[in-house]
Parts: sequence; structure tokens; C-alpha cells
Amino acid sequence: MTLIEDAKKGFLGKEHEKLATIENMDLNKFIRRIGNGKIVVPKNINRDTKLCSIGKGTSTKINANIGSSSKMEDMDIEVDKAKIAIEYGADALMDLSTGPDLKEFRKAIMKVSNVPIGTVPIYEAVVNKKGSIVDITEDDIFNAIINQAKEGVDFMTVHCGINKDLLSKFKETKRIMGIVSRGGTFLSHWMMHNDEENPLFKNYEYLLELAYEYDITISLGDGLRPGCLKDATDIVQVQELINLGLLVKKARNKNVQVIVEGPGHVPLNQVGTNIQIQKTICDEAPFYVLGPIVTDLSMGYDHISAAIGGALAAYSGADFLCYVTPSEHLSIPSLDDVKEGVIASKIAAQVADNALGLKSAWDKEIAVSLARKNFNWDEMFKLSFNSKKAKDYREKTPVDEDEMCSMCGEYCALKVGKDI
Amino acid sequence: MTLIEDAKKGFLGKEHEKLATIENMDLNKFIRRIGNGKIVVPKNINRDTKLCSIGKGTSTKINANIGSSSKMEDMDIEVDKAKIAIEYGADALMDLSTGPDLKEFRKAIMKVSNVPIGTVPIYEAVVNKKGSIVDITEDDIFNAIINQAKEGVDFMTVHCGINKDLLSKFKETKRIMGIVSRGGTFLSHWMMHNDEENPLFKNYEYLLELAYEYDITISLGDGLRPGCLKDATDIVQVQELINLGLLVKKARNKNVQVIVEGPGHVPLNQVGTNIQIQKTICDEAPFYVLGPIVTDLSMGYDHISAAIGGALAAYSGADFLCYVTPSEHLSIPSLDDVKEGVIASKIAAQVADNALGLKSAWDKEIAVSLARKNFNWDEMFKLSFNSKKAKDYREKTPVDEDEMCSMCGEYCALKVGKDI
Repeated sequence: MTLIEDAKKGFLGKEHEKLATIENMDLNKFIRRIGNGKIVVPKNINRDTKLCSIGKGTSTKINANIGSSSKMEDMDIEVDKAKIAIEYGADALMDLSTGPDLKEFRKAIMKVSNVPIGTVPIYEAVVNKKGSIVDITEDDIFNAIINQAKEGVDFMTVHCGINKDLLSKFKETKRIMGIVSRGGTFLSHWMMHNDEENPLFKNYEYLLELAYEYDITISLGDGLRPGCLKDATDIVQVQELINLGLLVKKARNKNVQVIVEGPGHVPLNQVGTNIQIQKTICDEAPFYVLGPIVTDLSMGYDHISAAIGGALAAYSGADFLCYVTPSEHLSIPSLDDVKEGVIASKIAAQVADNALGLKSAWDKEIAVSLARKNFNWDEMFKLSFNSKKAKDYREKTPVDEDEMCSMCGEYCALKVGKDI
Repeated sequence: MTLIEDAKKGFLGKEHEKLATIENMDLNKFIRRIGNGKIVVPKNINRDTKLCSIGKGTSTKINANIGSSSKMEDMDIEVDKAKIAIEYGADALMDLSTGPDLKEFRKAIMKVSNVPIGTVPIYEAVVNKKGSIVDITEDDIFNAIINQAKEGVDFMTVHCGINKDLLSKFKETKRIMGIVSRGGTFLSHWMMHNDEENPLFKNYEYLLELAYEYDITISLGDGLRPGCLKDATDIVQVQELINLGLLVKKARNKNVQVIVEGPGHVPLNQVGTNIQIQKTICDEAPFYVLGPIVTDLSMGYDHISAAIGGALAAYSGADFLCYVTPSEHLSIPSLDDVKEGVIASKIAAQVADNALGLKSAWDKEIAVSLARKNFNWDEMFKLSFNSKKAKDYREKTPVDEDEMCSMCGEYCALKVGKDI
């Protein structure tokens, strides 16, 4: 039985029921929302994953992408990235390795991670064929999925919404950046070259059977997401979303947990719109957005651009934010980039959660404000996203009194205010 | 004649008229908006300031606060902060020095800066009295204003909205953080101790005469701005805004340029509200916000929190963003902190400007997207907020081909897409 089936019968296991308490949600409401697919808890039956609920009314969760590339394959670094991402609060990890040894990388990353692990199985199919995209077969794709399902992958990105009809519309579309999703490009390239339907669309029922067997959460990828602000919210992006909305219904009917992926590169004035149409078209399936980045000029600082877009997206209803690191568009992230990306995403999530009035978020806001009022520096450091950095800042320019910092010295408004 | 008077007669000097072109605004509309106070161009008659327009329909401008504190007074560093802030795009600087030698610091900073310079004159009055706030006199405050006016300060923060009535309401208000504006604390402390009305409120007409004489732009400070999210948009904050709204009318009647300062610490869901009530209450006077910071948990990363709040604020109508650095609430910023603060603010401004549909912002977005599509790295670096950082990222993990980076290697979606 999958989690949805349990929920439809009105009960969950004890560990799952604890999540309702963590989210300050009435248990019956929590169970109902899992049953109707508005909340998911990604966990493969073959893996002992730390549970984490994503969706309507829960706190905003964040994901960190890690993994090797063909130009940078170092097992120790990728394992350390997994560890540091979790240390700084990533709720989930995606292993996006595309180096020759990607299978070994996945195993190593899964070994050191307790959070839900996601993948994009088509990468394995392509790497197995040494990058010869057009030569992979339907079986190559499904064998990768089965292989990863057995290993315990909790959620999988599958670009099922790209079909022949969508590609015909794409050909009529004027975009600056074309297709920028890696999986989306692979599939489009394959479909055009072989003049065949997308295997993940054509065999969606079979995919759902596999997902059902391992209780894998399907993450419906947005292969035609915009690659720059100018391309955002265009015909093919919205057409793909409509395709995904239809696939959401099918997954739920088969008791398979499903989330939907979203952009990407979006101007700030379109962020709320994107969330709203996803929520209506996909019947409030949990929405997983990449960033979004809200300017294309922030190279070296795309984590800040993504924090701006992510905060507004989550406030508007997005449930799951995929981080963006400072090295985005420029190089594979370093350990430090992973840390900074996670922190920027955590800030965005907290900003959205307090704006939505979540108790868990406000409890922390009040606690840190009281600590600040009382010059309780240790408590402030403890509550901050990077205690060491905050502490280092304070100690960099030492002052002789607790009741001030080097910014205002004895003219500290809080200190002067205490004397009033 | 002040700039407003010129505008009311329907003409400006040539240098001022060039600003309309920079802002892609019809010249007559630009002149009309200066005449009715919806756009300001801060420039003291005694200073050769680079002109910069702030207000309705213009691109979002950003300010960097620099200056010594009583705990850190190093002339070379502060001068370098001014230079680096301007290098990375600050449109204005405020010298907030409070060290014993603040007058020398102001002169040195003004000497190396061509952008508009702002100050908070009450700091000079307090430092002149060696920090004995309650002992300063009305003359001390106005002598500081006159002294700075003669030196050529372009805009001055004056906390004219704090009056006895407001403080009586403040006493009935339950806030966590009380008063966190330095100038606001000084004045409140002085007023309560001496049981006197705020000299800047009582003698506002005289203040306007001085501002008129030097064509100084008055920046009406929000002394009772919230110091934490929980205190935001409360009775005293809004009451002070109403007081400022009344003072805006008086300044305009005297042909004095005026802008209004705003918070501070605000949950994301209240950011738009804050801008909207300022715009109605202050009749679209240009709005100058500090951040706003949208979570109190981001110590060491308050520049990111402020970029989130600032982007939404500017998109909602704020005209002028005061940067926040990573060291906010912890220590006086270093050179690098100033740089990072400016860049985060520039990102927020660009995000807002493209969301508002400004041509100047979209021209850059399109240019960088075309450069990215064409793997024109030099052009991408040139367009980014920190070319060196972007370039370093690319070169950190070198790849042998132009048409990829180390993130995706040969699986680069753009590269694969070109082959389709």
C-alpha cells in the first residue's frame, strides 16, 4: 500500500503522524491532504528516509542539487556537499550527477544522507550510452528508473509533459534561449531525431506502476521552462503545465504521490501568476520551483536573485524551493557555494513562512527579537542560519561591552533606549 | 530659485533636462513631476553633485551608508568605502559618521564622491556634546544643519515627525524593540528628559527656510520605524507617517524638495501595504526605504533579506533603496561588506525595474540573455554586477571549450539545443 492509500483509509503510521505536529496542523486535515495529494511525503519503501512533508499549509521546504559533472568528478567533494547541505538545513537533496561514475556517486551520496533523495533518471540512461542521446532506447530509460527505484530513490524528476504536440508548438515559438532544462533537451533532441513520442509520456501508465510499487514520488519536470526572463510564461511553458495538470490527475488516481516542477527565470511581476496557474491547473499539487531567478544579470549572485524570487514564490503558494548557488551559469558549485545556496534558500523559506503567518516561523522571529533586545548574543547566533559567520562578524571588530556593537558604539539605539 | 521653482515655471537647466532622457521619460512629464514633488534631484547649490533623479517613473536608485563609529574611526577605510560603493553602482551615499572626528570624515568623503551626499545632522550635534544627548540645545542642532548646508550636503535626514503627541502614543504601545532609529532615539530621549517639543518639529518652518536657501532635499526620517518584524506597521509607525505626510505638504508649499523615509523590519506580506499607505498619505513623495529586512533571523546575511524586501518594495512603488550589508546588527561594515551590500541592493533595484517594465532594465536583460545564448562570456561578465567575481567563477573550474561550463559539461542544454 502506498502512503496515499493509507491516508484514504484515514490513518498513517506513527512516524508520519508526527509530521502533523511538526507542521502545527490538525492530524485529520494532514491525513486528508495526503489522501488528496495536496501534501506529499517522499519516501521510497526501500529506504529509511527522514520524513518531510511538502505541500499545502506546511512550512516551505528546500532542496539542494549536488552531483558530479563530466568536467568535475570528485567523490569526496560531492559527499561533503551532501553533508554540508544537510548541516545547513536542506530538507532534500537531488543527485544530478552526470559524470561517468554517476552510479557510484549516487550510492555514496545516499549513504551519507538521511533526507529524501531525488534524481533525474534519464541522466543515467544518457551517461550509460556515453552521451549519445539519440541512441538511447525506451528500455534504457526505464531500466534506469527501475535500477534507481530499487536502490531507494525517493523522488524522481520525469519530463512526461513534453509530447509531440508540445514540440510542434515549440517550433512556432520565438524564444531567446530555447530549451534549457537538461532532461528536457535530451528528450526533445531524442524525439526530433527519432521522430518518436516521448517514452515517459507514452508509457506514463507503466511509469506510475513502477512509482506505485516503490511508493516513489513523481516530480513532473518542466522541460520547457524559460531560460531567461524574456521567455517566461509563454505558450509552450503554459502548454506544458496544462499537460502536467492532466498527468497529476492520473497519478493521483493510481495512488502515486506527485509534485510539479516550475520555473526558472521569471520577472517578479509574473511570479505570483505562475504559482496561481499551477495551483489551479494542477489542482494544488505541491509546487517545486527552481529559484526562480528574477534577473538574468546576477551572475555570481544568482543565489540572491533566487532568494528574492523564491521568497515571493513560496509566499504565493510554492511549497518546495530548489536552491540556486552563486556559481549558477558559471561553474559547478564548490562546497562553499552549496552552503551559501542553502542558506539563501532557507532565508527565502523563512521570509515566506512568516509572511504566511506560520507559527513555526513566528516563534523563531519573536525569539531572535527578544534575544536582540536583551543583547543575548549567544541566543542570536544560535538562531541564525550560520552561527559561525554571525559570531565572526561580531568578533571581527571587538567592543568592550555586551550592550553594543562596533556599528553604533555607545550610540546604539537599543542601549540609549534602555536609559529612557 | 530652487529646482522646484524652476520646474514650476516649466524649464530646467540642460544638465537636469538630460535626466529625462536617461529615464526614458517625456521631458514635460519629468519637469511637471519635479514641480509637484513626485521626483527629486538632490543637489546642494554649494556642491557640484552628479545629478540623479529619484521618484515616480524613474529607475530605482540605491544608497550606501558609510562613516565612522565611536568604536572604529579610520579615515582611509571610510574613504575607500565611498569609492568602492560608487564603483559598484551606489547612486548616493550617506555619511553616518559618529566618531569624534566626524567633521573631517565628512569632508574627506565628500571630496572623493561625486554622487549626492546625505547626512543626519543631529549626529554632529550629539558628538559635539561628547555624547551627552540631553544637554544639546536647539541651536546645537540648527548650527549643525547650517554648517553642513554650507559645506554642500545634498540631502539631510531630519526626524521632524516625532512630536510630543506621538511620544505619548508610543508610551501606550507595546513593542518588543522600542525605538531603533539612532536619530529617533536621540530626539525622543532629549524630549522626554527635557519635557520639550522636538526642535525639528517646532522649528520646521525655519528648517525649510534653510533647506530653501541651499536647495537641500529634506529626507523626513522615520524615527519610530519598527526594529523587528513583530513591531511593523503599528500605531506609532503609521502615526509618524501621517505626521510626515502633513510635513511633506508644507515643504512643497515652500518649494523645498522632500522625500520620506520608511522601514526597516517588515514581514513580506506587509511590504506592499507600507508602500501604498506612504504613497497615499504623503501624496506620492519619493519613498526611501531601509531594506526592508523581511526576517530577523538573517544575521550575517541581512543583505539578502534586504534584497528580498527591497525588490518587492521597489516593485510596489518605493523609489530609493538604502542598502543593508552582511554585517548589519553585528559590526561596522568592512570594505567588502559595503561592496556586497551595494551589489545586493543593485540586484533588488534591477529586479523591481524589470518587473515594472522599465526599458532601461529590459535592455540589459535582453542583452545578457543574447550573450548567454551565444556563449559570449566577456559580454556576460561586462553586464554583470561584479564582473571579476563572475569571471573568477568561470575560471575556477576551467573547461576546454567556450560552449559549456563545468556545471553541465557537454550536457549543457544550450549546447545540445544548438545541435537540434
